Amino acid sequence: MTSPRTLAQQLIADHLTAGEAVAGEEIALRVDQTLTQDATGTLVMQELEALGLDRVHTEPSVQYVDHNILQADARNAEDHLFLRSAAQRFGLWYSGPGNGVSHPVHMQRFGVPGKLLIGSDSHTCAGGALGMLAIGTGGLDVALAMAGEPLRLRMPRIWGIRLDGELPDWVSAKDVILELLRRHGVKGGVGRILEYHGPGLAALSAMDRHVIANMGAELGATASVFPADERVREFLGAEGREDAYRPLAADEGACYDLQETVDLSTLAPLVAMPSSPGKVVPVLEAAGVPLTQVVIGSSANPGLRDFATAAAMVSGRHVAPGLSFDVNPTSRQLLLDLTRMGAVFDLVAAGARLHQAGCLGCIGMGQAPASGGASLRTFPRNFPGRSGTPDDRVWLCSPETAAASALTGAIEDPRVWAHREGVEPPRLDLPERAAADGATLEAPLGPDRARAVKLVRGPNISALPELDPLPERFDGPVLLKVGDDVSTDEISPAGAQALPYRSNLPKLADFTLTRIDPDYPQRAREAGPHVIVAGENYGQGSSREHAAITPRLLGLRAVLAKSYARIHWQNLANFGVLALEFTDPGDYDRIEPGDWLELPGLRAALANGDDCIVVHNATKDDDYQLTHRLSTRQLLAVLAGGAIPAHGQVRQRRETSMKPAAPRSVQDGMT
Amino acid sequence: MTSPRTLAQQLIADHLTAGEAVAGEEIALRVDQTLTQDATGTLVMQELEALGLDRVHTEPSVQYVDHNILQADARNAEDHLFLRSAAQRFGLWYSGPGNGVSHPVHMQRFGVPGKLLIGSDSHTCAGGALGMLAIGTGGLDVALAMAGEPLRLRMPRIWGIRLDGELPDWVSAKDVILELLRRHGVKGGVGRILEYHGPGLAALSAMDRHVIANMGAELGATASVFPADERVREFLGAEGREDAYRPLAADEGACYDLQETVDLSTLAPLVAMPSSPGKVVPVLEAAGVPLTQVVIGSSANPGLRDFATAAAMVSGRHVAPGLSFDVNPTSRQLLLDLTRMGAVFDLVAAGARLHQAGCLGCIGMGQAPASGGASLRTFPRNFPGRSGTPDDRVWLCSPETAAASALTGAIEDPRVWAHREGVEPPRLDLPERAAADGATLEAPLGPDRARAVKLVRGPNISALPELDPLPERFDGPVLLKVGDDVSTDEISPAGAQALPYRSNLPKLADFTLTRIDPDYPQRAREAGPHVIVAGENYGQGSSREHAAITPRLLGLRAVLAKSYARIHWQNLANFGVLALEFTDPGDYDRIEPGDWLELPGLRAALANGDDCIVVHNATKDDDYQLTHRLSTRQLLAVLAGGAIPAHGQVRQRRETSMKPAAPRSVQDGMT
Repeated sequence: MTSPRTLAQQLIADHLTAGEAVAGEEIALRVDQTLTQDATGTLVMQELEALGLDRVHTEPSVQYVDHNILQADARNAEDHLFLRSAAQRFGLWYSGPGNGVSHPVHMQRFGVPGKLLIGSDSHTCAGGALGMLAIGTGGLDVALAMAGEPLRLRMPRIWGIRLDGELPDWVSAKDVILELLRRHGVKGGVGRILEYHGPGLAALSAMDRHVIANMGAELGATASVFPADERVREFLGAEGREDAYRPLAADEGACYDLQETVDLSTLAPLVAMPSSPGKVVPVLEAAGVPLTQVVIGSSANPGLRDFATAAAMVSGRHVAPGLSFDVNPTSRQLLLDLTRMGAVFDLVAAGARLHQAGCLGCIGMGQAPASGGASLRTFPRNFPGRSGTPDDRVWLCSPETAAASALTGAIEDPRVWAHREGVEPPRLDLPERAAADGATLEAPLGPDRARAVKLVRGPNISALPELDPLPERFDGPVLLKVGDDVSTDEISPAGAQALPYRSNLPKLADFTLTRIDPDYPQRAREAGPHVIVAGENYGQGSSREHAAITPRLLGLRAVLAKSYARIHWQNLANFGVLALEFTDPGDYDRIEPGDWLELPGLRAALANGDDCIVVHNATKDDDYQLTHRLSTRQLLAVLAGGAIPAHGQVRQRRETSMKPAAPRSVQDGMT
Repeated sequence: MTSPRTLAQQLIADHLTAGEAVAGEEIALRVDQTLTQDATGTLVMQELEALGLDRVHTEPSVQYVDHNILQADARNAEDHLFLRSAAQRFGLWYSGPGNGVSHPVHMQRFGVPGKLLIGSDSHTCAGGALGMLAIGTGGLDVALAMAGEPLRLRMPRIWGIRLDGELPDWVSAKDVILELLRRHGVKGGVGRILEYHGPGLAALSAMDRHVIANMGAELGATASVFPADERVREFLGAEGREDAYRPLAADEGACYDLQETVDLSTLAPLVAMPSSPGKVVPVLEAAGVPLTQVVIGSSANPGLRDFATAAAMVSGRHVAPGLSFDVNPTSRQLLLDLTRMGAVFDLVAAGARLHQAGCLGCIGMGQAPASGGASLRTFPRNFPGRSGTPDDRVWLCSPETAAASALTGAIEDPRVWAHREGVEPPRLDLPERAAADGATLEAPLGPDRARAVKLVRGPNISALPELDPLPERFDGPVLLKVGDDVSTDEISPAGAQALPYRSNLPKLADFTLTRIDPDYPQRAREAGPHVIVAGENYGQGSSREHAAITPRLLGLRAVLAKSYARIHWQNLANFGVLALEFTDPGDYDRIEPGDWLELPGLRAALANGDDCIVVHNATKDDDYQLTHRLSTRQLLAVLAGGAIPAHGQVRQRRETSMKPAAPRSVQDGMT
């Protein structure tokens, strides 16, 4: 008899194709579903081309368009045509602009308890709300999964989070995840799967759980897992997909690697201060900050109850004069339901600017606040400048706090507002059956029709660049030294200026790290091969692999950091950048920008399996010990210049071999 | 007993403060109302500052925000804060982002039969639908009107357009104005006021008339005038403003300078081909052109019936796969009514992307189509590149044609679609009372509170530059030679790249004429004072005075053209650029780019009242005769370097004079 297992352990065991599910060991997992969005997807589709794929092995894989939808010039629309043609060619579903944000739409239309979903978006983890194992990864990992490769990652530790009690009035799911961020900060979930359990779950709907699972990304967690229970059955039933339901839960008596308890009844409205989702304080402490903008939307608060609650609060009232109250529906379905319920009328009559369905301001595509004006948003992130305004002051909160503050014109605790106005908490009458409609998603073409599809490649769609192998000896300058928690938003910015170039890597490279050093792209092009030195948690946030590939195009060959965020660390290996970690973090302080570093015999050392790499600082005549933590598979990728050339080598070896192929896990050199 | 007068003659007589209402003579008209939008308004507010205004003399003046609402960075939001503060300071109404497009909102909330409205937007003429005299002008003319100055213009000829019969099924107001454009082209209305009359009016609602009056701008007309009759009373009643109604019509037996008849019953659905609103053909001749995008919205089709008709046609159906069906509500009120009627649900369920209320794609703020993809729009204009896509192919049509084509995926005559589908024309049940709501418009502050307001001037708000007087002798090269019908969109582009700089003239100048010659700004800065040579109708389209001031900032001192569009001609004078017309149009062919032109004794010649200016071509040793057509007032502006320095001189003379001021018309040197 096996010992009782957590739900996360069950999901991993159900998908394990290689390795041992012991924390820290590399494991390989069979992938059931993938999602890609347009800002990362155009590159993924180019990777499928480079991999020579005929048709995806996953079922389903869905390509969403939710990021690049402003269409300030022809580039966005060209991306849409390219992605639609690629979805048709490779056998993916296609969800065009206007259908909404990938995460809630995927949950509504494709979510199935027990499945393993990966996606080239860091908030893919939201799918854990339905009892899926849902993991955000780099785009190339998604491409390889579509090509039939398993997902490889280090087995995380399982962090059991027990929810007790019930949320008080005016406190909602967003406050639960903000509470965890208040306790643990943006690195608190690194290397962990958060598994929620306990009696407090009973009163949290599937969409409430989506809110909590989604922002597990902000804790740095690998995934968040909720059981599939009655709330999940209700959700799937409302979508007309009750047959997708099956109950899932941790075994009685299962042990977690780590444990935590949240008593929901003790929570208060919380807010994340500028400019980190980890800087959380009670709303009461921030009350009175004058606002120029309030925004409701994004995958962090995508549910009907989130919008309907705000609508009920502003109904018959009007937002503060001069304040921009922006409402971003998260899906076409949500917009239809809100319209039917009268909530659209209430929001617009109260002064809302109702925008098209999509990510919009959450990814800096429009809705940039004025310089110096504070903006309060129900979004998941507020990294510096992510709004599109360099000196922005963006706060994060629940819909209740957002609506109360929009009416007041300053940050306000919804309980204080309700008391002052004599308002009872809204009792929402949500429809039992959502306005789900199949016509706006395009199903995959059959294999024969798919093979006849030509990719529609507008002038803005580049091809993947050739990547050269790691040289035998690598010397170069430290071109940049950065601190802790540098996000991929700072490495490869999103926003209305850069995002339209996500399909055009040479042009996108011009934006690399410019939020930290506007001259980096030019200096890098002049310097050639070079090194970046970083502190803790380098590459947190968004999964965009552009943050690995564009510095690489500019000559980055190695990063020396105290630690890395999971997805970015994998992306660096995928694109042939050597990610090294200081054995002694104190060495970080002994390196200065401009120092000349030497890594002699690098290739040989890596090929020999040395985990320890000695870096010589020629400027200071100093030596540092670093480790790489790379699996053999990752090492091969770095040596080959990236995972795509490495994949090509493997395929070539397979094709030229006269012997039957060895099991993939061995052949691919997994440790 | 006076002879019977046309309605236009009555309106002019009611507002005449100087001059004689004889075609071609300069007249001065008292201005009742003004409107400004944000793309031109930030400059107008800076002009009010430069004029030293304390409080507007007009009632009401309204500042709208409808153009720059994407907020790709902080600049748009900074403009909004600046405009709101300026509206408060100077005593204007303020309509913030999300309230909608200036023209329909002004008609709904402020339109009054018999009033004279001017606006810094070429489609201000739409107000003629209510029996107003509504004229688009340059921003400085609007600023001067707010300062109490009359509007000066040459008395147009009155063009009586008699409407007979009733429109057939599937043919609507847009087809009426497209028919006039088909007959007369984009210069057909130059120097004319179009006055609609006849029995065909009875079946055209006030909003139908708005469609027709709006696109009078595309004919180059000074204004379009409709009588105030029962349809106008109904419209004002639905807005809760029936007391604003008074009947107005031409006198029995009034004579028009020109006459035309349109038998509505003979009209068919029409479409304007790329890339001019004057290239009109029957939809049947264009049927089958594949589309990537269909857009419904803009001030050219802003009415509830326009959107409700499209909604009824797509209800229960779905637009063609892969086609982007964009719906731009023209006002908050419209969006509320459409929501209440169920039309929002029908549109979104059919696949529409529902956008925020505003101009959006009509002014190139988003919604740019893919390169090479055809786009069909209910907009007024399709000048090359105005969509944001350099090689765009934009077609213009009615909502009926747009909806049928969106369902088909290719341009289609709605009659053909209806016949094939067995569909009857929609019988709309429009609400008798609109969802008008006062809370979203901000009323002017009282004088004392207004004086305490400080302008909120973000980093992107420049001040007006100092303009130097015309030199005694002016020599310079022909830096650019262009053809006929160059629009102000080509001179100073709108669109998502340039529009955010409308408040930042030095930066905006970098975009000047780049659609025609990408190097013009750099060449102009290197060359200094220079000349542009142009064909017919130079400066058609939008009223933006940026098309005069930014070339001037780059060194433009004179334009030699065959003819000018009215508003741009006035704008050139307002900003001190000498606009000359060839006496012999054949001289146009004798000048080449790069030729060196000499205008000796220019200042003296102009000051002496010479209408004829001789320009010497030093390169070709050739001479040309040109005329300037400028009134004395305009001459003084050109000599002073622009109307603002000229105004300052006049004010100074007034203030230093010991004698009582002479009547303004004489003192300002009006001819």
